[in-house]
Amino acid sequence: MKSYQEMTMEELLAEKAILKAEYKKYQAKDLHLDMSRGKPSQEQLDLSMGMMDVLGSDADLTCDDGTDCRNYGVLDGIQEAKELLGDMIEVNPDNIIIYGNSSLNVMYDTISRSMTHGVMGNTPWCKLDKVKFLCPVPGYDRHFAITEYFGIEMINVPMLSTGPDMDMVEELVSSDEAIKGIWCVPKYSNPQGITYSDETVRRFARLKPAAKDFRIYWDNAYCVHHLYDINQDHLIEILKECKRAGNPDMVYKFCSTSKISFPGSGVAAIATSANNLEDIKKQLKNQTIGYDKVNQLRHVRYFKDIHGITEHMRKHAEILRPKFEMITDTFERELSGLGVGSWYTPKGGYFIAYETLEGCAKDVVARMQKAGVTMTPAGAPFPYGKDPKDTVIRIAPSYPSVENLKTATEIFVICVKLASIKKLIAEMEAAGNTAE
Amino acid sequence: MKSYQEMTMEELLAEKAILKAEYKKYQAKDLHLDMSRGKPSQEQLDLSMGMMDVLGSDADLTCDDGTDCRNYGVLDGIQEAKELLGDMIEVNPDNIIIYGNSSLNVMYDTISRSMTHGVMGNTPWCKLDKVKFLCPVPGYDRHFAITEYFGIEMINVPMLSTGPDMDMVEELVSSDEAIKGIWCVPKYSNPQGITYSDETVRRFARLKPAAKDFRIYWDNAYCVHHLYDINQDHLIEILKECKRAGNPDMVYKFCSTSKISFPGSGVAAIATSANNLEDIKKQLKNQTIGYDKVNQLRHVRYFKDIHGITEHMRKHAEILRPKFEMITDTFERELSGLGVGSWYTPKGGYFIAYETLEGCAKDVVARMQKAGVTMTPAGAPFPYGKDPKDTVIRIAPSYPSVENLKTATEIFVICVKLASIKKLIAEMEAAGNTAE
Repeated sequence: MKSYQEMTMEELLAEKAILKAEYKKYQAKDLHLDMSRGKPSQEQLDLSMGMMDVLGSDADLTCDDGTDCRNYGVLDGIQEAKELLGDMIEVNPDNIIIYGNSSLNVMYDTISRSMTHGVMGNTPWCKLDKVKFLCPVPGYDRHFAITEYFGIEMINVPMLSTGPDMDMVEELVSSDEAIKGIWCVPKYSNPQGITYSDETVRRFARLKPAAKDFRIYWDNAYCVHHLYDINQDHLIEILKECKRAGNPDMVYKFCSTSKISFPGSGVAAIATSANNLEDIKKQLKNQTIGYDKVNQLRHVRYFKDIHGITEHMRKHAEILRPKFEMITDTFERELSGLGVGSWYTPKGGYFIAYETLEGCAKDVVARMQKAGVTMTPAGAPFPYGKDPKDTVIRIAPSYPSVENLKTATEIFVICVKLASIKKLIAEMEAAGNTAE
Repeated sequence: MKSYQEMTMEELLAEKAILKAEYKKYQAKDLHLDMSRGKPSQEQLDLSMGMMDVLGSDADLTCDDGTDCRNYGVLDGIQEAKELLGDMIEVNPDNIIIYGNSSLNVMYDTISRSMTHGVMGNTPWCKLDKVKFLCPVPGYDRHFAITEYFGIEMINVPMLSTGPDMDMVEELVSSDEAIKGIWCVPKYSNPQGITYSDETVRRFARLKPAAKDFRIYWDNAYCVHHLYDINQDHLIEILKECKRAGNPDMVYKFCSTSKISFPGSGVAAIATSANNLEDIKKQLKNQTIGYDKVNQLRHVRYFKDIHGITEHMRKHAEILRPKFEMITDTFERELSGLGVGSWYTPKGGYFIAYETLEGCAKDVVARMQKAGVTMTPAGAPFPYGKDPKDTVIRIAPSYPSVENLKTATEIFVICVKLASIKKLIAEMEAAGNTAE
């Protein structure tokens, strides 16, 4: 197969004409499709409906330690929930605080607390002239929204196939005391689906930050969100690795059951060292008497243990896998070898990132919109919404039906090709190599 | 009946001897009673168990507007919940945001947001040299803990039988730009059970604050927590009154269902002007995608409407009323006319405050502890835990059984008498008026 770069202007124009015709056929269908947000589908939500039955009016809502989950109390979560989530994220239950329904909320509160009260006795960030965060890109837009909201300067760090560029991370973190954190989605990353390599995790644990209050914000959002049973990525557990490396307090690890049970009605948690936990609880006791223990118990009674979660996630995978495979298969069949971009083939998580030729992402997203398919805005996976090369498009396969997704992917392929041809023709014209 | 003040030293010593003997009899019983926190009793919690059945696995978790409560989205709460809580706190549903499980958390976040980002475009409080709050005393310890945590200077304002001393409030608020708020529990106040009078609410609404970002923190915690069906206190609705007075943005009103359904597993809300809501949502969208909509829907389906809440609260009242009445009846019978202190007889809420002679509160609480009854620490209802006159003791009747509460109240009466006699004897001795 000839790549677009190898084609003559005539060939490109011929290809463009065919694609335009196809594009118009889709436009005529008046579609309303959405590949923009990582929401579970209705079919996935149905998987957890059994959870609504485990605590009926005849249920005993008492914990093993005698706590009545219906009443006030228990700031850091019921023991049973700590054990379940501890197994899920591979940490000791003693290192966990169970929160409300949203890990994003926990992350926001962590930044907010650091702003007003500092980290473990260090100067509150609001008293500093400058606070900076490292942001592996592309990354999660809601992470960047938090740091932007607090006026924290964000520095892009390129994602490699092994995770963030660790040469750059090490260099920056060890030299600049204003750098207080780094946003990480270390497993099946949002949006590329990359899992940090063993070397990357070990280098993270061995960082020598200039700032004593530097913390790794390790958002383990997709810890059990595999697409396959055997063919899974493995991520080294960061708390233990940091402890081994002599940096026990350097990481906050976040997780939730949002994409396991119900988004918005799950439980979230933070896992970190005893020192950090003590620091957090000093604040937390002023913020709340405790989170929703009945819902914590509901999750424990429903899943029972980590094997229950594994089996449950297998059902999610059965729904998600065909969607992911359909997209990457289509890309492979339709785009591979054309020289019009690249993508990773994730083994889990919620997203696929398509990387276009430079300067084409916005064009592709706009073309999609005009054909009735809403995509995550180009630029969104970058701090301040600015993709410096305009190349990354986040694709969220979970919510639409396979049929709708198939249509959307067919249109996507056409839009990528059209945007690439437009760019290549413009380049040829700029070089004086016109067809005339 | 002779008051203690009218007694001679001999009479006091005789009374003391009798009381000491009674006290020792109770001490010998090795009691472990607790009147310290305002937790609903198990019997009260049982009232809401039906709530566990309304959303089973066969339930449709879709809102009237088509929102699937199981999925992400809806930052400010489902419409049905806004309507239910709107009726509960007498505000337009459009003026409400429904949060998670804790109104304390909402109040904390409100202060925290004001610290880092300011109120409606005003300077963030963390950039100011000094921020002050007015604190009607006695008041709610967890309110004061929040402002103390953020380094906000707290100024005591005495509670009168009509609410806070409004002469003092008006004077301070209009003259000091550093005063940014006032903590209020306007109905069945914690801990005295006082409801602010019509005049007090009208004067609140007509405040002319020196600070543009001054807000009334109106914690309507006990809005529907009446002990009687007809003999209820009425509180003027503050949002409407502020609007009428030309101060529409001056109040944040908080509420929750914590003491209606399950503490820790209820829903909380803020009600305020459109301007304030817009200001809050600018922040909130960075903090969370949304709160637990399934639990919001659970509350709506269970209570159905405000009449459902009224009927439900009637059942709570039937459990709480005998406890409150037993205590105030005992006080009336045993303490009235003795000149050893005073109390209000609340028509709702969760607390009774006993006001001892000056300098006796700590002594009473210590005596209670030695007899096996845990009380809220003396001083707790004051900023920094300091009761300047050492007179206020908060009594929480809800959690213990009537039988245990009866015993505890009998001991309380003895301890009040003993502490008062000790004080009066010391005064006589200091005045040279000894029995020898």
